Amino acid sequence: MQTPARAVGVLGGGQLGRMLALAGPPLGLRVVGLDPNPQAPMAAVAPMVPATAFDDPQALDALAAQVDVVTWEFENVPVAAAERLARQVPVYPTPRALQIAQDRLPEKRFFRELGVPTAPFAPIGGPADFPAALATTGLPALLKTRRLGYDGKGQRWVHRPDDLPAAFAALGGVPCLLEGAVPFERELSVVAARGRDGGVRTFPLTWNTHRDGILARSVAPAPACPPALQAAADALAAATLQALDYVGVLAIELFQVGDALWVNEFAPRVHNSGHWTQDGARCSQFEQHLRAVAGLPLGDPGLTQPLSVMLNLLGRAPPPQAVLAEPLAHLHLYGKAPRPGRKLGHVNLAGPQDAVLAAAARLEAALAALSARSPDPAPS
Amino acid sequence: MQTPARAVGVLGGGQLGRMLALAGPPLGLRVVGLDPNPQAPMAAVAPMVPATAFDDPQALDALAAQVDVVTWEFENVPVAAAERLARQVPVYPTPRALQIAQDRLPEKRFFRELGVPTAPFAPIGGPADFPAALATTGLPALLKTRRLGYDGKGQRWVHRPDDLPAAFAALGGVPCLLEGAVPFERELSVVAARGRDGGVRTFPLTWNTHRDGILARSVAPAPACPPALQAAADALAAATLQALDYVGVLAIELFQVGDALWVNEFAPRVHNSGHWTQDGARCSQFEQHLRAVAGLPLGDPGLTQPLSVMLNLLGRAPPPQAVLAEPLAHLHLYGKAPRPGRKLGHVNLAGPQDAVLAAAARLEAALAALSARSPDPAPS
Repeated sequence: MQTPARAVGVLGGGQLGRMLALAGPPLGLRVVGLDPNPQAPMAAVAPMVPATAFDDPQALDALAAQVDVVTWEFENVPVAAAERLARQVPVYPTPRALQIAQDRLPEKRFFRELGVPTAPFAPIGGPADFPAALATTGLPALLKTRRLGYDGKGQRWVHRPDDLPAAFAALGGVPCLLEGAVPFERELSVVAARGRDGGVRTFPLTWNTHRDGILARSVAPAPACPPALQAAADALAAATLQALDYVGVLAIELFQVGDALWVNEFAPRVHNSGHWTQDGARCSQFEQHLRAVAGLPLGDPGLTQPLSVMLNLLGRAPPPQAVLAEPLAHLHLYGKAPRPGRKLGHVNLAGPQDAVLAAAARLEAALAALSARSPDPAPS
Repeated sequence: MQTPARAVGVLGGGQLGRMLALAGPPLGLRVVGLDPNPQAPMAAVAPMVPATAFDDPQALDALAAQVDVVTWEFENVPVAAAERLARQVPVYPTPRALQIAQDRLPEKRFFRELGVPTAPFAPIGGPADFPAALATTGLPALLKTRRLGYDGKGQRWVHRPDDLPAAFAALGGVPCLLEGAVPFERELSVVAARGRDGGVRTFPLTWNTHRDGILARSVAPAPACPPALQAAADALAAATLQALDYVGVLAIELFQVGDALWVNEFAPRVHNSGHWTQDGARCSQFEQHLRAVAGLPLGDPGLTQPLSVMLNLLGRAPPPQAVLAEPLAHLHLYGKAPRPGRKLGHVNLAGPQDAVLAAAARLEAALAALSARSPDPAPS
């Protein structure tokens, strides 16, 4: 077995990098970030390599020189940057996962090839593709940019054929994917890890609720999940990880359609819908990702509490004392300035089912009152 | 209510400071350390104020200028340093707690005045005090320096009256306390917190095992603890915290003598015997201390797991992968160089009772084999 890493480089310094960085020192790992933004949330808790951009060659080489392995915390890192690093140090997950995740077309095709259901889809390069695409997807359909979409950005609904030209224009005429609407019951996700030795560990299925395209709440384990559904998720996660020869944590966003799981998309990184693991699982997704990429044994993804509810703090965060007065609440702030819709932190509620649901209801009411009381602050 | 603090200064940058620093960012707290040792364990995870010594006035003033409140992580900080800070910013706990904890004589008297049993004790300033002291304590007795003792250092057993002169000389002839041997069944500790509003939260009693005077293992909740014993510990902790007008986390080391609790000593800070709370309680002692001194609501000290066992990694740490292969193990390394007897980290095992005890037995055997295989590295 290879000697485990002692220092891990992270491309990106957002909240995911910050939480990775906080998970490193107890494991004996030095975590170093790279982000062009000197105010990135990770910078408050870890050493950072200054960079002019994510593909700044000098910064990348400086990072490679001081770590044993490199990973990333968001999927829009330039693939060329990951490849440059991979010529100097091991990079996990494989840059190929980044490449697939960055473009909805190869992403959808990847899952189709795995035999996993997805929404019907068709690429749109220009108006000439409209008729065939509509014939493939049916209506309603969702037009999405192939690249750089997140949190519901870069998407337009198409209800009638006539909507498509305007939607395409509104998205800037860039290459898009048209996706047929999925008749789903609910949105789930599965977060799983694969180690350097090929071992796989999967967290329980999580039920996610979005508001305005942004994750608002995750509940784990997803209620009313028959064992067959979890088994299907485990198999799907394992097949995905193996097909990509993946090392690290990966999240797959799913639609539950009847008794089946359809894939929406995947994130080749730790994921917002896995934040509950910090306080509700034996090993958090952040520790798990570091263990995987550093070549340490994977941790136990099992539950420590019967139920966990994660609530995102969006746009404006309540005063910490309002959250901390809830006995089951664990606060996780990112050190970011408020801005409408921005993820500023999250609260994990973990404990017995009834108590967690009651606390979640109180807290959601308080958060709703907070956003109602005064408008979101202006962008800064 | 006062506005909660946003930045907390910590005197001392050892492993306790390091773990306080890691608990700060999720609460939105910036934690800043002060330690004359630039290699202090905390320096790898938090900004530090450079200092020539703990009472370096410029360093103290620089710390005060950038934080809202100051605390400490070890009890041999000069009281004058805490008092200098207290003229500039709130300092919690009160410097008086530091003063009492630094000298075994006022410490014992403090508990006597509270009506709490302790070993019989007598101060020794010189040979003239020997006869009266021996008459007070009986034999065997333990001679301890009044100041600067920790982890069994600065102590000598006295079995016959004739041992006392040699013991006193061996301790350098400094002011000492002679303590009668306590016929205890086991050593326990209670870790508790008091908020700025006077509210008190107490963690369950912990059973501690020492080796060569150094804490080796803690088990929580202490097995075979009748409710009356926990109630006695709660009352003792509350009385101590209140008498000191204390804010923050405090640990009291106890002897169980029959059904009674005698006090050995207290530590006005987070404590090694409270490390299990990181993985076995709803709120860790580190988060709890920060909440208290920052003026945030106190956390829930209740258990999240039926049993926790904490094992100290002393002298040499096993390779991380050896610990992390245990599914119930949580590793906490301090980033310190190995040295005989040095606390390099700890492992928390938390989960169902039988599984935790089995894992603890495996890990203790592995740690024993590790120290047997080769001698401790030379001091560096």
